[in-house]
Amino acid sequence: MAKYQELVEQLKRQIKSGIWHPGDKLPSLRRQSEHSGLSLMTVLHAYQILESQGWVTSQPRSGYRVAPNIKSSNEPQAPAAVSWTEQVDINEFIFDVLQASKNPSMINFGFAYPDPSLYPRYHVNRAMSAAARNMPISTTFDNLPPGNEQLRTIIAKRYAAKGIEISPDEIVITAGALEALTLSLQACTRPGDWVVVESPAFYGALQSLERLGLKALSVRTDPVTGIDLDSLERALQTHDVKACWLMSNFQNPLGFTLSNEKKQKLIELTQRYNVPVIEDDVYSELHAENDSVYPLRMFDDTGNTMLCSSFSKSLIAGLRIGWVAAGKRALEVQKLQLMSTLATSAPVQMTLVHYLTSRNYESHLKQLRKKLFERKSKMTNLLNELLPEEVKVLSQSGGYFIWLELPKHIDALQIYREALKDNISIAPGKMFSLTEQYDHCIRLNASFELNDKYVHALNLLANIIRDHLAK
Amino acid sequence: MAKYQELVEQLKRQIKSGIWHPGDKLPSLRRQSEHSGLSLMTVLHAYQILESQGWVTSQPRSGYRVAPNIKSSNEPQAPAAVSWTEQVDINEFIFDVLQASKNPSMINFGFAYPDPSLYPRYHVNRAMSAAARNMPISTTFDNLPPGNEQLRTIIAKRYAAKGIEISPDEIVITAGALEALTLSLQACTRPGDWVVVESPAFYGALQSLERLGLKALSVRTDPVTGIDLDSLERALQTHDVKACWLMSNFQNPLGFTLSNEKKQKLIELTQRYNVPVIEDDVYSELHAENDSVYPLRMFDDTGNTMLCSSFSKSLIAGLRIGWVAAGKRALEVQKLQLMSTLATSAPVQMTLVHYLTSRNYESHLKQLRKKLFERKSKMTNLLNELLPEEVKVLSQSGGYFIWLELPKHIDALQIYREALKDNISIAPGKMFSLTEQYDHCIRLNASFELNDKYVHALNLLANIIRDHLAK
Repeated sequence: MAKYQELVEQLKRQIKSGIWHPGDKLPSLRRQSEHSGLSLMTVLHAYQILESQGWVTSQPRSGYRVAPNIKSSNEPQAPAAVSWTEQVDINEFIFDVLQASKNPSMINFGFAYPDPSLYPRYHVNRAMSAAARNMPISTTFDNLPPGNEQLRTIIAKRYAAKGIEISPDEIVITAGALEALTLSLQACTRPGDWVVVESPAFYGALQSLERLGLKALSVRTDPVTGIDLDSLERALQTHDVKACWLMSNFQNPLGFTLSNEKKQKLIELTQRYNVPVIEDDVYSELHAENDSVYPLRMFDDTGNTMLCSSFSKSLIAGLRIGWVAAGKRALEVQKLQLMSTLATSAPVQMTLVHYLTSRNYESHLKQLRKKLFERKSKMTNLLNELLPEEVKVLSQSGGYFIWLELPKHIDALQIYREALKDNISIAPGKMFSLTEQYDHCIRLNASFELNDKYVHALNLLANIIRDHLAK
Repeated sequence: MAKYQELVEQLKRQIKSGIWHPGDKLPSLRRQSEHSGLSLMTVLHAYQILESQGWVTSQPRSGYRVAPNIKSSNEPQAPAAVSWTEQVDINEFIFDVLQASKNPSMINFGFAYPDPSLYPRYHVNRAMSAAARNMPISTTFDNLPPGNEQLRTIIAKRYAAKGIEISPDEIVITAGALEALTLSLQACTRPGDWVVVESPAFYGALQSLERLGLKALSVRTDPVTGIDLDSLERALQTHDVKACWLMSNFQNPLGFTLSNEKKQKLIELTQRYNVPVIEDDVYSELHAENDSVYPLRMFDDTGNTMLCSSFSKSLIAGLRIGWVAAGKRALEVQKLQLMSTLATSAPVQMTLVHYLTSRNYESHLKQLRKKLFERKSKMTNLLNELLPEEVKVLSQSGGYFIWLELPKHIDALQIYREALKDNISIAPGKMFSLTEQYDHCIRLNASFELNDKYVHALNLLANIIRDHLAK
C-alpha cells in the first residue's frame, strides 16, 4: 500500500472510530506532514482522496474538515431499513432522459456513458475493418451462444491476470451488460419472486424487475460505505429472496466502492442464505490509476455469483457486447439467450477479438483512467466552488459519477426540467429509487472536459440549484 | 396473372371442390395442353409448381396424381381442434440441435438458416469496412432505440414499393427478428396470459412463451392451406387471448403460404375479437421468382399487427439485426428494448445502411430466390425418388423447408438420433409442437447444393427412414 493510501486508511479509521467528529477541522497539511513524517505532497494527495470520497470537505483558506454527513461507529446505529414495493413501477421519464441524450446540442451530465470523445474510435474502426476482411463461412456458427471462444478466452485471461479464476467455459457473450444482467436474473427467478436491489440502484435493475414481474426489496445503501449488511441480512431473513442484484465497484448512482473486507462479508452473508448474487461490474476498469478493484465474484468459489460486465463503459458504447461469468448457471443463461435474442452479433464479436489481440486495450485503459480522474477532480472542485455548502458534493475515487445531495425539501425533478430547457441533462435521484427517498439528489456525469461550454453549463446548473435553495 | 399461374389456380380450385380426389391421375401434359390451348412447357411449369406446393405428386413414367393428403372441401370438416397446455414446456434437445450446428463436419438439414455459402459475404464485409471508415462520434446516440433513422427509412421504402404503408416512425430496429417478436409479445401480454400459436409452430415462439410465463393455445394448422380459421375463431371465443403469434408466408416448419383472401379473413377475425397479431415474416423475401407475397400487416390498417422480420434469412445470418413495424405499440416496444438489451449494435446498423444503399441487395435477392428454387426442386425430386410412397414429401412454393410426414407410428426423434451419428442433423417434428402430434414428422433444410456429399447424406437418411418403416 502506498504511503498516501496508508494515511487515507488511517484517517478513515479515526473518523469511523469517532476520533474525529463530523465538522471537525483536520490537522493542517504542514502539521500532519511533521506529525507523520510524510511529505507535504503525500499528505495533500491523501486529503484530496478523502475529499473525493466524501470523507472530508475543504474550504478555501480554512483547511479540511470531516464531512458533516459522516457517521462514527460510536453513534447509535440507525434502524436497519428495508423499504419495498409489491410491484415495481418505474416512471416514464427515464425513457425521456435517454431519448434526450440523442439531441446533439444537449450537455449530457445526465448520461450514463463516458464522454464519447474518450472512445478509441480509430483503433476500434480499424479492428472492424480487419474483422470484415477475415470472416470465414463458419463465423455465424462459431459465434452462437456461448459466444466466440477466442473472445471468452481473452476475457478469462484478463480476470486471471488479476488473480480471479474464471473459466472461458462459464462465460456467455451477450448484447451488452444489460442482457447479461437480465438473463442472469431470469436464470434464478420466476415472476413474483423477491429480488434484493440497492437503494438507490441502477434504474436498469429496477426496470428489469418490473418487466419480468419480479418484486424489489430495496436495501439501505450508504453513499460512502455502500450497502448496509445488517439491512441486507434482515431482508434475507424476512423474505424468500431469490437473487441479489448488486454493484460493488463505483456503484451507479452513488459512486462508492466496497472494501475487500466488506465484499467478503457480503458474499459470506449471501452464501449463508444460499442466495445467488448478480453482480453488475461495468465500471471496474475505471479505477484511479493503480488502484485496481476486485469483483464480488473474487470472494465466491461456489459458482453462485454471476459476474456481468461489458466494454461499453471502458472501451466504446454502442457495440452491444457484454458478458456474464455465470458460474454454475452458464448453460441456463445460454438457453435463455437462445430464446430471446438468439446470439450476439458475430461481426462485432470478431471486431472485439481483433481489437483485444492488438494490445491497444491496456494502453487505452491507462489513458482513460488518467483522463477520467483529472476531469472528475476538476468538476468536483468547480462544483464545490459553485454550489453553496448545503449541497453535498459526493465524489469518490474511480468511475465518473458525482452524487449531489441537496437539502431534503428540494425537488430535483424540478431542477431536471428547468435544466433541460437550457439543453442540460442531469439524472434526478428519482430515477434510481422506488421511493421518494432520493428526490432531492442528482447524479452528474463527470467524464467531460471542462471547456468553456461545459463550465458555462455548470454555472447555469448551479444557478438553477441556488434559485431553488433560495425559494 | 401469367398463364401457367392461371392453370395452377384453376387446378387448385378443382381439387378443392372435389373434382379431383386424392390419388387421382391428372390429365397427361399433352392432353392438358390440347384441352387448354396452352403450350406443353406452360402446362409442365404449372404441374411442377403444384408439385412443389404439395398439391400433386409425380412418379416416373406414370404422370401426375393429386397428392394423397389433399382434402377437398366436399369432405366433412374435421372438428376444430384446440389443443393447449397450462404451462409450455420445451424439450431440452432444441438446445442440442442448435449446438450441433456448430460442428463443422455436420450436414445441417436440421438448421433453420439458409446455406451460409449463399450469403453475399464479400459485399457485406465491404459494407462493414465502409461503415468502419465513417463512424462519427454521434453513432452511438443516433443508433439508440428506435434505431438508425436511415435504416428505418430504407425498410419502410422497401415495404412502400410493395404497396404497404409503413412509416419509419413505427419501425424499431432489434437484435434479429427473435428480439422483435419477443418484445412485441411483451408489449401486449403479462405473465399468465393466453397466446395463440400455430400447431406446429416455430419452436422459438414456444420457447418465448415458456420464458415469459405465457400460456400457449395451439391452433390446428394444415400443412398445405395453413391455419384453420374455424379453430382460430373457437380459440378466440373460448379464451381471453391477448395475442396471436403467426406466420403467413413460408411458414416454419410446414412451408405453406396463406392466400391473400385467407390473410384478409384472418385479420378480419382477429380484429373482430380485438386481438393483436404478432407476425413472424422472416422468409417472405424467399418467394419463387416473381411470386411476391404480402404480410398480414398489409390487410390491417388499425396498427394492431406487429410485423417482425430481419436480414438473417435473406441476406446473412449472424448480424443480429431485425425490426418490428409495431403499429400503435412502437413506443412501448422501444421502452421494452431499453430495459432488456438497451439498443442494437450501432456499427452493425451502419453496416446495413452501407450495404442497402449500395443497391446490391435486390440483385442478391434475385439470385438467392433462383438458387433456392432450383435447390429445393432438386432435393424434392431426390427425396421422392429415395423415399417410399408412405412418406409424404411436402415441398411448397418458396422458402427452403421440406416437411416429411412419415407413417404415424414412426418416432422421428429416433431417426434424428441415428442420423446424428452419421453427422446429419434433421429437425424432428417434436421441436415444433407442445403435443405428440408431429412426432412422426421431420423438417428438412433444402437450401444446400446437392453435391456428392449431400446426395450421400440424403441416401443415408433415406436408409435410416426405410429401416424404421420396415420395423
